[in-house]
Amino acid sequence: MITVFRIGHRIPRDQRITTHVALVARAFGADNILVDTKDTKLEETIRGTCQRFGGNFDIQTGIHQKTFLRQWKGLVVHLTMYGERLEEAIHRIDKNKDLLIVVGAEKVPAELYEIADFNIAVGNQPHSEVAALSLFLDRYTGAAWQKKTFEGTIEIIPCRKGKMVRQHVTEGE
Amino acid sequence: MITVFRIGHRIPRDQRITTHVALVARAFGADNILVDTKDTKLEETIRGTCQRFGGNFDIQTGIHQKTFLRQWKGLVVHLTMYGERLEEAIHRIDKNKDLLIVVGAEKVPAELYEIADFNIAVGNQPHSEVAALSLFLDRYTGAAWQKKTFEGTIEIIPCRKGKMVRQHVTEGE
Repeated sequence: MITVFRIGHRIPRDQRITTHVALVARAFGADNILVDTKDTKLEETIRGTCQRFGGNFDIQTGIHQKTFLRQWKGLVVHLTMYGERLEEAIHRIDKNKDLLIVVGAEKVPAELYEIADFNIAVGNQPHSEVAALSLFLDRYTGAAWQKKTFEGTIEIIPCRKGKMVRQHVTEGE
Repeated sequence: MITVFRIGHRIPRDQRITTHVALVARAFGADNILVDTKDTKLEETIRGTCQRFGGNFDIQTGIHQKTFLRQWKGLVVHLTMYGERLEEAIHRIDKNKDLLIVVGAEKVPAELYEIADFNIAVGNQPHSEVAALSLFLDRYTGAAWQKKTFEGTIEIIPCRKGKMVRQHVTEGE
């Protein structure tokens, strides 16, 4: 079970980036995303994507950071450009445990570095939490996203030119 | 030589996402980024990062899409969720040629699918051009970002807890 926890989410400033974080979580193999700030518009966007494109991905917003972290029983990975190298840390993460991946928008509370079992940097350069999450999930799952099926009502068929989309219409529609 | 071309950039709507695209381009091994819409604020942000964190990365904005594409001599890869699978396409790209990676913000002109030598999907699910670019560059360069050095005045030292930053101060400063 892989959960992503987006903290420091500000409305409206972070809505597009957090949407990308959530879609990346879904596409690259996380089971759900939690967001600290209540954001019903974000929830609707992500649920709409799941309805059309499939998968069992879930979103909850308005999650109190400290309360949630205190009761979390699994491992905590905090993605930060200050952390140890992804390629050195990834093999030490016990995959039999539930995983919480914490992704901050800008500054995070200093104690997060202490709470986290792993502070991991996807390169120690400034770039993007969206990219960091996608590469972390790619390595953690062994690129399982390449084989994952979502069985949505809309399915995009890979093709070399143009667009090919399969729409599944159930009886009665 | 790897160039990223961000098209459909709108101010202010896309400024944060395009900033992430540019920083990902830099961190994961591209040499420069072009943006179709003139955006001096974006240029300043990216140049500021390069000054502090190093590297020879360059940014130019206000690039006319059609004019630029018409005179481009190298290969064109267009990242799109409608494209063929990354893992199938990546080995067919001739690495001896200059590469232009086109990354759209929302809808792109239909002719781009024809102009591109490769339309490539990093998973055929909706997610993020930021994630798509990072994973494409990861695969294309064989994860060379893990070893890349930038030699900036600021250098982040990987560490397991907290933050470790090395500031290079040259004489006279």
